[in-house]
Amino acid sequence: MSRTFSTGVQRSEPSNVGNVGLADGETIIGEQAPEPLTVEGIKARRAKAGKLIAPTASYSDSDMFKSPQAYEKPKARRWDHLLSPESIARKPCVLKLAAKHLKKPGLISLGGGLPSAENFPIDELSMRIPQPPHFGSSTSATPSGASSGSQEVTIGKHDTTEKEDAVYDLSIALNYGQSIGSAQLLRWVTEHTELVCRPPYADWRCALTIGSTGALESALRMFCDRARNDSILTEEYSFSTALETAAPLGIKVFGVRMDEQGLLPGSLDEILSGWDEKARGGARKPTVLYTVPSGQNPTGATQGEQRRRDIYETCRRHDVFILEDEPYYFLQMPPYKPAAGGPNTSDPAEQTVDAFLQGLIPSLLSMDIDGRVLRLDSFSKVVVPGSRVGWVTASEQVVERYIRHAECASQGPSGIAQVLMHKLVDESWGHEGYLRWLMRLRGEYARRRDVLLGACERHLPAGVVGWVPPAAGMFLWLSVDHTQHPEASSKSILEIEEAIFDSCIDKGVLACRGSWFRAEQERPPSGLFFRVTFAAASEGDMDVAIERFGAAVRESFGI
Amino acid sequence: MSRTFSTGVQRSEPSNVGNVGLADGETIIGEQAPEPLTVEGIKARRAKAGKLIAPTASYSDSDMFKSPQAYEKPKARRWDHLLSPESIARKPCVLKLAAKHLKKPGLISLGGGLPSAENFPIDELSMRIPQPPHFGSSTSATPSGASSGSQEVTIGKHDTTEKEDAVYDLSIALNYGQSIGSAQLLRWVTEHTELVCRPPYADWRCALTIGSTGALESALRMFCDRARNDSILTEEYSFSTALETAAPLGIKVFGVRMDEQGLLPGSLDEILSGWDEKARGGARKPTVLYTVPSGQNPTGATQGEQRRRDIYETCRRHDVFILEDEPYYFLQMPPYKPAAGGPNTSDPAEQTVDAFLQGLIPSLLSMDIDGRVLRLDSFSKVVVPGSRVGWVTASEQVVERYIRHAECASQGPSGIAQVLMHKLVDESWGHEGYLRWLMRLRGEYARRRDVLLGACERHLPAGVVGWVPPAAGMFLWLSVDHTQHPEASSKSILEIEEAIFDSCIDKGVLACRGSWFRAEQERPPSGLFFRVTFAAASEGDMDVAIERFGAAVRESFGI
Repeated sequence: MSRTFSTGVQRSEPSNVGNVGLADGETIIGEQAPEPLTVEGIKARRAKAGKLIAPTASYSDSDMFKSPQAYEKPKARRWDHLLSPESIARKPCVLKLAAKHLKKPGLISLGGGLPSAENFPIDELSMRIPQPPHFGSSTSATPSGASSGSQEVTIGKHDTTEKEDAVYDLSIALNYGQSIGSAQLLRWVTEHTELVCRPPYADWRCALTIGSTGALESALRMFCDRARNDSILTEEYSFSTALETAAPLGIKVFGVRMDEQGLLPGSLDEILSGWDEKARGGARKPTVLYTVPSGQNPTGATQGEQRRRDIYETCRRHDVFILEDEPYYFLQMPPYKPAAGGPNTSDPAEQTVDAFLQGLIPSLLSMDIDGRVLRLDSFSKVVVPGSRVGWVTASEQVVERYIRHAECASQGPSGIAQVLMHKLVDESWGHEGYLRWLMRLRGEYARRRDVLLGACERHLPAGVVGWVPPAAGMFLWLSVDHTQHPEASSKSILEIEEAIFDSCIDKGVLACRGSWFRAEQERPPSGLFFRVTFAAASEGDMDVAIERFGAAVRESFGI
Repeated sequence: MSRTFSTGVQRSEPSNVGNVGLADGETIIGEQAPEPLTVEGIKARRAKAGKLIAPTASYSDSDMFKSPQAYEKPKARRWDHLLSPESIARKPCVLKLAAKHLKKPGLISLGGGLPSAENFPIDELSMRIPQPPHFGSSTSATPSGASSGSQEVTIGKHDTTEKEDAVYDLSIALNYGQSIGSAQLLRWVTEHTELVCRPPYADWRCALTIGSTGALESALRMFCDRARNDSILTEEYSFSTALETAAPLGIKVFGVRMDEQGLLPGSLDEILSGWDEKARGGARKPTVLYTVPSGQNPTGATQGEQRRRDIYETCRRHDVFILEDEPYYFLQMPPYKPAAGGPNTSDPAEQTVDAFLQGLIPSLLSMDIDGRVLRLDSFSKVVVPGSRVGWVTASEQVVERYIRHAECASQGPSGIAQVLMHKLVDESWGHEGYLRWLMRLRGEYARRRDVLLGACERHLPAGVVGWVPPAAGMFLWLSVDHTQHPEASSKSILEIEEAIFDSCIDKGVLACRGSWFRAEQERPPSGLFFRVTFAAASEGDMDVAIERFGAAVRESFGI
């Protein structure tokens, strides 16, 4: 429970780029040309700003860390007309408001019930982590081998006062913090987001989350209300946990048709244009779209750039707010080449990070001139799920409402996880090292994907089972042509799906039934699908597993 | 986002105490006498049960870790009539249900999208922690000094397969887990809770939380519904964040009168017996009591044993469910002796842990024959707030509903925090070491309390400012007799309070205004109060701060 009081973040030297401590979109553009929005530009900006001073429970926000360029853009639209009564009713924490007084020199606080760091029974944390560019990979050793080794990093209790360069320590990380997250990690997240997404409006901000699952629930509670009969749209086949999150809140979910690039803007427009509350069981015209643009779960579909632009424009036309869930964004892969005869062997360390960034399909956030996107980012798929640290990016208004809820719902992510993530992605790797880690990781996933696709080509009955090689993520969506089933006329798709699933279990493979992912659970499925992942099983196991799946399908179809 | 699949927890050897893997209250009582509910008894039970085998995302529950004695009691009542429509509507995660198939030998899963531990860029974590019984305290060094030093503990990626005794490692902790928490930490929490609280019904269970703040919001959503006009009761002055959590959910909060032992059962009964929906603005008769029995925030009041029994009986009579929030439970202190002339110098290491446990006021959970209590426990005040790890204890039905929500709201606490907490309180300290830590800590807080109280005696105007020495927690509630104020007839309590608060800030001390904590914000305060804490400021600062506070009061009262 938080009784946190806080002074704001300070810098040891005055910044000359005018981006520290601004609020409400106020801008002071320095006279010098701003640093470019590159890894090197961020380094230069940090050097100018001086050491980050952010003691226990410091208040911070992204405006302290954004580039001056950000302020040259127009501000986001306001979303008061979409917010739920619950969200509108949230007030700032009274104890946190009192924190403004802590700035007064010499003031002694008997206010906040923050335990003293002297009573924290953890004196030091250490972590051994692999280093860029090769991350200790045995298949791509450097000539010296030195830069590929692992590094031991250490966090002491009072580093910020005892070590000249330290900006974060256990006395801060182990105490209460702000629900928006620590200034230290929020700085990195803000810089990274600007580097990757460059939101085209001025007042965007980030907030740390306890992972995208919880952030999605918060976002749904922020925009939807049971008593208003609110509803949302999503892909026809959608992430089951997202559906399970919406249902108990009384939020109706409707599915949008998909092709190999995922959600179809034409279908989206058709649904919204012809909305009939009565025909939709009393549901109000949807005001929110939940979408996973890259490596969609469960279909593995990835929206191309034009597809994203068309989706965004359709949402603008109908004033729909977008929840862009992108856990797999950085797992965009090179196209699959069936004839290649083996996994892709190019060394990601030979590419530049700029080329990597430029090769990524632009995010919806990067197209978001209205500020109508809340983007959910996650470390789960690309660093570790167990950190329970992610972040959202949206307009100042939306992030402020998000934080007001987080103060009651989570108090932000674990400080232990925050300080370790900061040590990893900021102090040790830096932006370039992190991007190099992502480059390496997508290579890993591409290799795994290729192994799975090779197994599918070898073991699945052509003409009955089809698939589109995924361009991102960790899932392959297998489409089984149920019309060829000998009992197609007497059995439902669900019955055939169940029989194949049971037969798979008998033969020793678990694949997810497509019907589990239907956005509209009460409607019969549009086809017969199975979701398989190439994330977890070993390469040898993937081959055996697909062989078993193929045998189950053959048996069911009598072929 | 979780796509976790899991097999259940296994033991390397069959248990002979019959407490493994039982469900629905099924009991198998072994022929041998069960181990006693003591620290040594738990050790013996663990030794019999064999090594805990709980790989990535294992399902577990408290029934696997409770003593056989627990099952000899009757089961809890059911709370279907109190649960909210939102809670009732929750269904198990479809992907997690599929996990049951993973028990099949030889099955290969292409189901859950769990990343492979090989791609986790943390190879090892280490932590330096102080050791019992003296925890490195310089004021109470042992003759050898060795046992008081700090210890370095290390967690590798594959300890459970590489080290004979290891039950938890980074490959498990850094991946997705179950929302109830890891089996490893859930075991410790279950054992600790039974040791301390011994719930008097059979089917109690624990679940890890992301801290009591989030757990409280979940509990409120579980039992209260806006559309039903649900309301809750709490102390007249209550934890402001709890009030801020309830308000946006449309839950009306009503205050119960208090004395120096906190909430008055007579007032509780009076309110409930005479409930008039119309007079209460349409609010339904309260079905939930939120209370902080020990060291209540903000008043510092501690309910004695009989008080707790009376409160429990009153809640039974009116079928009210109890949320028992106990962050300060273990900070119960010896009585304050003003004449002692200095801080208490007894060495906590000389007491036994049994004596410590027996000296604690029994919890509401320990009296809970109906299973109508959800107890919230927290590491925040007694280990570190930054772990964001706590736990709840309640009946199987209530915990199951809690977990269903946690699957969407949080996915449970950070695995990084869980593995470090496990290493600290289980592997390194064990139950006895943890209790010794609590004994040491309450000594620390007692010393700080005594310093603050001494300062109050020295610096505050007797007859105008009064207080009750707190018997637990970290707060002192200062009562200012506003009737003696020269402008008492022309100024409201709120106006005088504000003037004193502002004057305090001017003089350099921050104390919390009592009115911030009113359960019913729209009602005028019943008195003029300030909350001060002895948790954070140094002893010297506390003296200066209270002197300043006294000056502000004197100035305002013209004395």
